[in-house]
Amino acid sequence: MNREELINLIKIKRSFLCIGLDPDLSKIPQHLLKAEDPIFAFNQEIIDATHDIAIAYKPNFAFYECHGVKGWHSLVKTIQYINQKYSDQVFTIADAKRGDIGNTSQQYARTMFDPVSSGMDFDAVTVAPYMGEDSVKPFLSFQNKWVVLLALTSNKGAVDFQFITNNGVRLFEQVLHTSKDWGTPENMMFVIGATQAERLADVRKIVPDHFLLIPGIGAQGGSLQAVAKYGMTPECGLLVNSSRNIIFASQEKDFAKKARLEVLNLQSEMNTILKSAGI
Amino acid sequence: MNREELINLIKIKRSFLCIGLDPDLSKIPQHLLKAEDPIFAFNQEIIDATHDIAIAYKPNFAFYECHGVKGWHSLVKTIQYINQKYSDQVFTIADAKRGDIGNTSQQYARTMFDPVSSGMDFDAVTVAPYMGEDSVKPFLSFQNKWVVLLALTSNKGAVDFQFITNNGVRLFEQVLHTSKDWGTPENMMFVIGATQAERLADVRKIVPDHFLLIPGIGAQGGSLQAVAKYGMTPECGLLVNSSRNIIFASQEKDFAKKARLEVLNLQSEMNTILKSAGI
Repeated sequence: MNREELINLIKIKRSFLCIGLDPDLSKIPQHLLKAEDPIFAFNQEIIDATHDIAIAYKPNFAFYECHGVKGWHSLVKTIQYINQKYSDQVFTIADAKRGDIGNTSQQYARTMFDPVSSGMDFDAVTVAPYMGEDSVKPFLSFQNKWVVLLALTSNKGAVDFQFITNNGVRLFEQVLHTSKDWGTPENMMFVIGATQAERLADVRKIVPDHFLLIPGIGAQGGSLQAVAKYGMTPECGLLVNSSRNIIFASQEKDFAKKARLEVLNLQSEMNTILKSAGI
Repeated sequence: MNREELINLIKIKRSFLCIGLDPDLSKIPQHLLKAEDPIFAFNQEIIDATHDIAIAYKPNFAFYECHGVKGWHSLVKTIQYINQKYSDQVFTIADAKRGDIGNTSQQYARTMFDPVSSGMDFDAVTVAPYMGEDSVKPFLSFQNKWVVLLALTSNKGAVDFQFITNNGVRLFEQVLHTSKDWGTPENMMFVIGATQAERLADVRKIVPDHFLLIPGIGAQGGSLQAVAKYGMTPECGLLVNSSRNIIFASQEKDFAKKARLEVLNLQSEMNTILKSAGI
């Protein structure tokens, strides 16, 4: 999916919501454990109940890989289901936080973007910046595919290295400065944690035009209003992720309905924000 | 495997070699493509031909994941084969370069270290440091399991961020300073690229006792002598990785025999180095 199509989705659906598909088996409704593939069954219901409002789905690979081959099978089925049933209606992000030397990142890029090789065809992948340009570039050589590069994360450990300062520039800012020229606003986004919303003003000085993927709303404590205040652009420029608050809204058989209610609440708030911004 | 057992292996096998199991389908002997699982068949022969000399095996996940579910199946079979046939005789490293917020890293740790959950039981996993302490700690809560944290990588892009300097301390040095207290020399190692062997002297000032995993020997151009000169400790303290030069030594049916010859050459050089160091 290209940038124009993504922006159109936001305008039509009146939301900039990304739903994290992180199906922890200990938290999904227990009746699903009897299904042949509980994770896929869970995802399927969540997706069917929310696809007309959600802009993006973001499966975090950890929640699939921990079940080994079976978990990977659930992951592949999930992205195939989205692509078959809701093609062009949602943006998909492989939350895998990969990154390795060039020839190895090339293999990871095939994993995410080459369905003939891996069975998977995501629109975007999250990538860790530590290894630098040649670890990121291979992901950028696919048409209409995106890198979502970690810059400022939403967790406590973000302070350990991301705020190290050189000549007044913090590491997360240096990552933005250096990497923004590896791609363009057409194929790169950045992860900026919502728990640090006021930092978004600093981020926008460096990347005024790029989309930002904002985790940390909900369970991690970030505020949607603050994110929009400091991070929104004239084309929105935001994908705000929520996972646990939506997908685990209920552990009963009505979990998908309850997830939709959470999503409708967020959409309502997002629609107000979009309107105020003239979008 | 604990540190004492690892050091014993080095003394007995007279090597400190780690073999990267990175089975690129375009480079493995073409007759194997007829096998039911070409990647597993390839790994099996390489492992059988080298297990008495190699200290460690390090499958890089990218080369498996790019084949989707089938590739993960080959990966799981490979680690299970090593553990069943050569248990306690080799150290195993999941080269996955993972790292995420705490509750997510916890799932990745289960992937690598909990065979009941994932089918896999590695001794160690490579982890990216960018997200800080809570992204690394979950991997350190497993008995006799190791984190191999990226510090100074062997690729060109290492210069982009790893040399950023704050008060005279470069980022890769800060990663060592900060993270060495998250674990101990009994459960943490660091990746230090061999292409920067002279930097090992700086590294040893900060972590005199930790094992270092050294990629970049061979195809990437690093020198074994230089690595030993600057990085070796009284207990060796090194695992030197080679992948392509060993596993792709031949594309013919004799590939495992040719791989063994490469390994014997490296062992000979390593044995000389170990003897000179009184090990």
